Amino acid sequence: MTTQDFSRGAAYVDGAFVPIGDARISVLDWGFTHSDAVYDVVHVVDGAFFRLQAHLDRFRRSMAMRRMDVGMTMDEVRCNLHEVVALSGMRDAYVAMVALRGRPRIYGSRQPADCQNHLVTYAVPWVDVVPREVQARGARLKIADVPRVPDACFDPTVKNYQWGDLTTGLFQAHDEGYDSVILCDADNYVTEGPGFNIFSVWNGHVWTPDHGCLPGITRATVLELCTQLGIPFTVGRLRRAELEGSDEVFITSSGGGVIRVRQINGTILPHAEESPVFKRLRQAYWEAHRDPRFHEPIGYHAYA
Amino acid sequence: MTTQDFSRGAAYVDGAFVPIGDARISVLDWGFTHSDAVYDVVHVVDGAFFRLQAHLDRFRRSMAMRRMDVGMTMDEVRCNLHEVVALSGMRDAYVAMVALRGRPRIYGSRQPADCQNHLVTYAVPWVDVVPREVQARGARLKIADVPRVPDACFDPTVKNYQWGDLTTGLFQAHDEGYDSVILCDADNYVTEGPGFNIFSVWNGHVWTPDHGCLPGITRATVLELCTQLGIPFTVGRLRRAELEGSDEVFITSSGGGVIRVRQINGTILPHAEESPVFKRLRQAYWEAHRDPRFHEPIGYHAYA
Repeated sequence: MTTQDFSRGAAYVDGAFVPIGDARISVLDWGFTHSDAVYDVVHVVDGAFFRLQAHLDRFRRSMAMRRMDVGMTMDEVRCNLHEVVALSGMRDAYVAMVALRGRPRIYGSRQPADCQNHLVTYAVPWVDVVPREVQARGARLKIADVPRVPDACFDPTVKNYQWGDLTTGLFQAHDEGYDSVILCDADNYVTEGPGFNIFSVWNGHVWTPDHGCLPGITRATVLELCTQLGIPFTVGRLRRAELEGSDEVFITSSGGGVIRVRQINGTILPHAEESPVFKRLRQAYWEAHRDPRFHEPIGYHAYA
Repeated sequence: MTTQDFSRGAAYVDGAFVPIGDARISVLDWGFTHSDAVYDVVHVVDGAFFRLQAHLDRFRRSMAMRRMDVGMTMDEVRCNLHEVVALSGMRDAYVAMVALRGRPRIYGSRQPADCQNHLVTYAVPWVDVVPREVQARGARLKIADVPRVPDACFDPTVKNYQWGDLTTGLFQAHDEGYDSVILCDADNYVTEGPGFNIFSVWNGHVWTPDHGCLPGITRATVLELCTQLGIPFTVGRLRRAELEGSDEVFITSSGGGVIRVRQINGTILPHAEESPVFKRLRQAYWEAHRDPRFHEPIGYHAYA
């Protein structure tokens, strides 16, 4: 294995560890042709996973909700993730675990239950949800015209690849010079953006949506930090107009942590520069990476 | 090329023709990770495409609606499809053309416009939307509890792989012993099933939904045949209760043509056995395969 070049990333596909460039799936896999896949992404910072157990728990739940069984225990998945990161040698990485429906064991079957589910994992260089320079100046976000797919049609707490509405919104936002996009539901309640959760701050109180969105691990971390820091918060319904009228807005993602928002549609947020609540939470978020409960060092030596 | 074994299917991926077993895409392709892909499927019967031009027109429109450009003219796509079928040597085949968003030209970009779009095509043995024995006895369909994704969230006239709601419905249907599933919108209007359109017949009049569904080529053929045969029809709103109260129901798909339905939920349709309108349309549909306007023979000799 050590003769292969894993420097651009390492993957596990079809039961073998391969360089990322060789990590491929069949064009007939229902994970592709029906987007019948669930996934999770965990980040590695300075040689350690952050909150890996929370990601594994969510991934296990996503698989169960879609009746997938990749034939591995979660401990085996954990070891597999350590191995892809160790093979890559990366100290900072974007690490994905994906369960795919696979292909029917009997050619021509149209029954998802007939398919051979399988696991793909990979570690690649860190990817931010918005570029670093955007994080530094504060993101400019558009509220999309396209509504988020309703929870009743597909449960957004199951992390999935069906990004059609988000992609439509991203195109609209980029056309108009925004950095990314926020989707509301058909009743104009805020849901989420492509790869991130949304937070509003008003009079020192933090709000984040309770539906239409993934229960992000970074979101959960921020809410725990609010409790620790004595910042009042509500997980509930957040109207589009309330978001636009916020003192501060920030977004959360495993790809970048807690990220300041400067502008929503045409409105520059009044406290965008200072963003005192954001600053406290961002600092506490990165400090939490040293918390031994959340910090899981990679065993690089095993693959040196 | 002729030294490779294309007998299980042939594909075009990354600019080369390969056996279907080697037809793979990167796990990092946004066609997979964001289900950012459009496709079309055309069938080959007895050595000829049926209505290839209509499928190419719809595929071109799907790509345009999602701002995809695979860098080929539609004539080049047409020739490519002839070549994959000819390489496979199959006289009856399921032939797919897929446009994928691809990967960003700059690592780490989150902008779909930065991606290198590309084309995948393949020819594999014919796949029916429901098994032949089910077609013979008439399909038993469940009306799902899960609602179809609203048109406002993702345009269903753009043929896509985001089957989450359909897969949920399929699991429910198979659990209860049904052959497949029909989804309604949130207001209980009938939309479509996984891979097929739906028709209701009541007092000799044919009804099919006008929203929430793909404008199927087989559906279009059936509507043209209704005109030719003097069968009155309406493309409009169809309530769930109206479907359940039909005299006859049939479904249409490139994977099987016009297929009789025997039962909707607990109700055996009163005219299920005779299904006189279905029988006329099914016969006319297969006769239309000899119509030179619709019939495009494969040039197998070029690859013999």
